[in-house]
Amino acid sequence: MPGPVFLAGDRVTLRPAERDDVDFLLENRNDPAVRAGRTAKYPSGRDDVETFLGGTMGRNDQSIGLLVCVDERPVGYVLINRERMGDSEYDRGELAYWIAPDESGNGYATEASRVLLDHSFDGIGLHKVVARAFESNDGSQRVVEKLGFTREGTFRDEAYVDGAWEDYYRYGLLREEWRERRSE
Amino acid sequence: MPGPVFLAGDRVTLRPAERDDVDFLLENRNDPAVRAGRTAKYPSGRDDVETFLGGTMGRNDQSIGLLVCVDERPVGYVLINRERMGDSEYDRGELAYWIAPDESGNGYATEASRVLLDHSFDGIGLHKVVARAFESNDGSQRVVEKLGFTREGTFRDEAYVDGAWEDYYRYGLLREEWRERRSE
Amino acid sequence: MPGPVFLAGDRVTLRPAERDDVDFLLENRNDPAVRAGRTAKYPSGRDDVETFLGGTMGRNDQSIGLLVCVDERPVGYVLINRERMGDSEYDRGELAYWIAPDESGNGYATEASRVLLDHSFDGIGLHKVVARAFESNDGSQRVVEKLGFTREGTFRDEAYVDGAWEDYYRYGLLREEWRERRSE
Amino acid sequence: MPGPVFLAGDRVTLRPAERDDVDFLLENRNDPAVRAGRTAKYPSGRDDVETFLGGTMGRNDQSIGLLVCVDERPVGYVLINRERMGDSEYDRGELAYWIAPDESGNGYATEASRVLLDHSFDGIGLHKVVARAFESNDGSQRVVEKLGFTREGTFRDEAYVDGAWEDYYRYGLLREEWRERRSE
Amino acid sequence: MPGPVFLAGDRVTLRPAERDDVDFLLENRNDPAVRAGRTAKYPSGRDDVETFLGGTMGRNDQSIGLLVCVDERPVGYVLINRERMGDSEYDRGELAYWIAPDESGNGYATEASRVLLDHSFDGIGLHKVVARAFESNDGSQRVVEKLGFTREGTFRDEAYVDGAWEDYYRYGLLREEWRERRSE
Amino acid sequence: MPGPVFLAGDRVTLRPAERDDVDFLLENRNDPAVRAGRTAKYPSGRDDVETFLGGTMGRNDQSIGLLVCVDERPVGYVLINRERMGDSEYDRGELAYWIAPDESGNGYATEASRVLLDHSFDGIGLHKVVARAFESNDGSQRVVEKLGFTREGTFRDEAYVDGAWEDYYRYGLLREEWRERRSE
Repeated sequence: MPGPVFLAGDRVTLRPAERDDVDFLLENRNDPAVRAGRTAKYPSGRDDVETFLGGTMGRNDQSIGLLVCVDERPVGYVLINRERMGDSEYDRGELAYWIAPDESGNGYATEASRVLLDHSFDGIGLHKVVARAFESNDGSQRVVEKLGFTREGTFRDEAYVDGAWEDYYRYGLLREEWRERRSE
Repeated sequence: MPGPVFLAGDRVTLRPAERDDVDFLLENRNDPAVRAGRTAKYPSGRDDVETFLGGTMGRNDQSIGLLVCVDERPVGYVLINRERMGDSEYDRGELAYWIAPDESGNGYATEASRVLLDHSFDGIGLHKVVARAFESNDGSQRVVEKLGFTREGTFRDEAYVDGAWEDYYRYGLLREEWRERRSE
Repeated sequence: MPGPVFLAGDRVTLRPAERDDVDFLLENRNDPAVRAGRTAKYPSGRDDVETFLGGTMGRNDQSIGLLVCVDERPVGYVLINRERMGDSEYDRGELAYWIAPDESGNGYATEASRVLLDHSFDGIGLHKVVARAFESNDGSQRVVEKLGFTREGTFRDEAYVDGAWEDYYRYGLLREEWRERRSE
Repeated sequence: MPGPVFLAGDRVTLRPAERDDVDFLLENRNDPAVRAGRTAKYPSGRDDVETFLGGTMGRNDQSIGLLVCVDERPVGYVLINRERMGDSEYDRGELAYWIAPDESGNGYATEASRVLLDHSFDGIGLHKVVARAFESNDGSQRVVEKLGFTREGTFRDEAYVDGAWEDYYRYGLLREEWRERRSE
Repeated sequence: MPGPVFLAGDRVTLRPAERDDVDFLLENRNDPAVRAGRTAKYPSGRDDVETFLGGTMGRNDQSIGLLVCVDERPVGYVLINRERMGDSEYDRGELAYWIAPDESGNGYATEASRVLLDHSFDGIGLHKVVARAFESNDGSQRVVEKLGFTREGTFRDEAYVDGAWEDYYRYGLLREEWRERRSE
Repeated sequence: MPGPVFLAGDRVTLRPAERDDVDFLLENRNDPAVRAGRTAKYPSGRDDVETFLGGTMGRNDQSIGLLVCVDERPVGYVLINRERMGDSEYDRGELAYWIAPDESGNGYATEASRVLLDHSFDGIGLHKVVARAFESNDGSQRVVEKLGFTREGTFRDEAYVDGAWEDYYRYGLLREEWRERRSE
C-alpha cells in the first residue's frame, strides 16, 4: 500500500517516501542518466537514501522532499531545500527534482514543481524560491523557465562535467511573480 | 487486536495508539483535509508519528494523546497538551483533535473531547483547558463552542493560510464552568 | 510458554513478567476499573509497561514486581516497592497490587500478597511493610486488613478522585506481627 | 570591561550578558519585586542563569536576550522569545523584560523594548510581536501600550498570584503597525 | 557577598545556597546534633551538598530548598520537597528544615517555615503540605504544631534510632487551614 | 604573546585566532557597523565565537579562518568558507572578511584577501573563489572588484536589511584569472 498523499496535482501526487520506496530511490539516484542532471559523482547506498524518507529531508525539518507519483507509481522526486547557512534565514528555498529516465518527457517534473511551489509560497509563505540548471541541461532550463523563474546569473566553471569545467545558471522566482503568473 | 481502552464515551472509545496504528496516523496527518484544520505545513514521516504512540505524547508525561475509536475502528485523535513553558505550571492544558475526513460530520470530535475534558477536570484536576481555532475553521469553532468554551481573544495574523495571514480565536473553559454545564 | 515461577502459593504462582505479558499488562493498566484503585491518571503505552518486565521494577533492583498467575494464566500483578526517599532506608517496603476485572473476587490479591509478604519478611528480612488504600476503596481495605495490617493514619485530601479531594488510609505491618499471625 | 554592544538607543545599550553579569542576573531574577511581574515561583540558581548568557537564550538560536545597560551599568534584561511550537513558524516572537527595582521608573523598559522591536521588525523581519501582562501589573501594561501594542484578549484564571487566580492580557503588534507609528 | 534574597520574613531571609555556602552546609549536615533530627546515617561529602545549591533541589525543579539567613549569616536550611512518585501529582509538598546547633532555640525554624509555607500556598498554589517528626523529637513537633499542622498518623517502627526502632508522627496542613489560621 | 603567523603580506599577517582574541572577536562581531556588512541578525556570545578559534572554522577542516593582524594587533578576520553543499565539491571556496571599524579604510581587507587568495589558489589548488556583497555595500564591492572578481549575477530580494528586501551581487574569480592578474 502506498503511503499517504501530501499534495496532489492533476496527474501527479506527492507523498513522503517510505521504506518500500528505497529500491526506487536507489536505482534512480545511481542511474547515470539521472545523475547527469545533478552531476552526482558518488554512488548512493541504502543509508544515504534514508535521508529521503519521511518527507522532511533528514533532520532538516524545514525542507520538504516528496516522491512524485503517477497512478500511485513512483516516477521521481521533488524537493524544496531550506538548509540554513550561517546568519541568513531569508524565507527562501531551493527547488530541485529528478524523474526516472523511463518516465521523463511527460511533464511530470513541471507539474510536480508547480504543486510544490504553490505549497511553498501559499502554504509555508516563502518569499523566494531559487533553482540551478547546468548550461548543458536544456531540459532542466526549460522546466524552470516554464515555471516562470528568472535567470539571475551565470556561474562560470562551477561544475566539472565530462572532463571539462562547465557553467551553470542560477534562477530565482519571487512570491509576487508566482502569483501574478498564476492569476493570468 | 486493538489496544486497551483508556476512556470510553457512548459511541467512542479512547485508547493509546500502537504500532499497528501508524498507517492510520500517517495517512490522516498528511491528508490535506486534516492538515487544513491544523495548518500543518510539513509532511509527517513514520518517525514523526512515533511521538503519538503510547498515550502520553512522546516524552511529555503530563500530556495525554489518545486514538479516537468507534467500534474498535480508529476515526481520529484527541489530545490535551500540557507543555510547561518557563515558570508557569498553572494547572492548564490545551485541547486539540482531528477526525479522518471520511468519518467527519458524526460528532465524534465533540464526544471524544467531552470524554477527555471529563478526565482532565475530574481525573487530573486541571483548573482550565484552552483551545484554538482558525477564523476560517467554522467546524472547529462549533465543536469548542458546543463544549462550552468561551472565546477569550482574537489573535490577528498568526496563521499563514492559503497565501494570506489569518486570525485565530483563542478559547478557554474553566473547571467550574464545565461542571455547571454538565449538571444542567 | 510462561516464564519460571519465582514464588508459589496454593492457587497462585508469582513470576517475572515477560515480553509476552505486555498485552495483559497494557490492557489492565489502562482499564478504568483497574485504574480506579490506583487513581492512575495517565495512559500506559508499551514503553511504560517495560518497567514491569523482569521482576525488579525497572532500574530499582531492591523492589520486587511479579505477575500473579493461576494455572499459568496471568490474573494480576503484585509488588513490594522500596523506593528510597532521602536518607532513609529502614528495611521497609510498600505493598501494592491489581487484579484483572474479570478475575477479581476470587481472593487472588490476598493470596498473592501473602506469598510476597512471606518472602519480604522471611526472605529479604524487611522489618515493616506499609500499604495505602483510598477511603472509597473498600475492597482494597478488606485485603490489607485480612492480611493483618494496622491502620496507622488517615491522610486528608491526598487524592483527587472523580472531581473531589479524597482521603486515604495508611497501613503498616511489622515482621513480628506477621509472624505471630501466621503461627496462630 | 563590559561586553560588546549589540544594539543602542539614546540612553540604553543592549549587549549579550557575560559571566561577570551572573550576580546581577541572579539577584534580580530572585528579587521578589522583579519576580512579581513575571510571577516567577521558583528560585534561580547560578546554573539557571547560564541560559541567559550569550545573547541567544540558551540553545534557541532564533531568540534574542540582551542585558539592558545605562552608562555601561546593567539595569535590566529584554528578550524576544521565538520558541517554535509544533508546526507553526509564523514569523512571530514574544517580547518580555524586567528592570532592576532601583532602576525602575526611568523608562528603560520602554526604550530597550523599542530598540529590540526595531531590530525584530526591520532587522530580522518578524511579522508580529506579542506580549503578556498580568491584569494587576499596570506598569507592564503601560509599557506595551506606549509601544503601540493592541490588546487581543483576556486570558481568565491563567496565573496564580498571591493566593488567587488572576487574568492576564495578551497583546499583539504587527510590523505594519510599528512602522506607521514610528513614521508619525 | 551573599546571594540574592528569594523570600523574607521579619528576622530571617531565605536565599538559594551558593558555592560559598558549601562549608556551612557540609559542617551542619554532618553535625551529630543536626543529624539526630533527620536520623541521617551517612556522611555528606562535597558532591552530596551540590544538590542543595541553587534553590531547586538538584534537578527537581518543582522542589524549593533555601538557606535560612539572619543578618546575611546562614543559620539553617528549609525546603519543600515535591518529588513526584508514580502517577500522583496532587499539588502537595513535604516541609523539612534544620538549624545549626548554635543558632537553635531562637524560633528561626518556625519563622523560615512560615515564610516558605506562605509561598507554597499562595505563590505556588499547593493544596496541602505534609511534615514528619520523630516521636522523640519534641522540638520539631512543637514547630509543626505551632505552624498549625494536624497530626494525621503515627508510623510505628519507621526509624532506627540509638539502637531501637522508633515511631514518627505524620502531619498535614491544608491550604484552607493555613489561611484561616493566618487571618485570625 | 600573539600566536604563530600562518600567512604574511607586506603590512598584514594572518594567524589562527586564540583564546586571548575572544574579546576582539566578540566586540567586533556584535558591533552594528561590522554586522551591517554581514547582515548578522543575532548576537554572538562567547560560545559562538569559539567556532572562530584555531584556523579551520569549527569542525569544517577544509575551510580556513584567520585573524588579520597589523604589527601583531588584531584588526579583522578573513576566511575561505568551503561548506560542502549536497553532492558538489568543485574545488571552490567563498571569500569573506570583516575589519574593525576603527581600522577600516586602510586597505587591510584587500591585502588580507590577496594573501589568502594566493594561498587558496597556489597552496590549496582551488579552481575558483566566489564572494557576495550586498547591493548597498559599496565598500565591499570595491574590495572584490579591486581583487579582480567578476560579477556573475544579481540575486534579487535575498537579504532583509533595514526593513526592506535587498539584492546582493555574486562574484567569481577563477584561478587562471588570478594568476594572469598577478603576473601583469
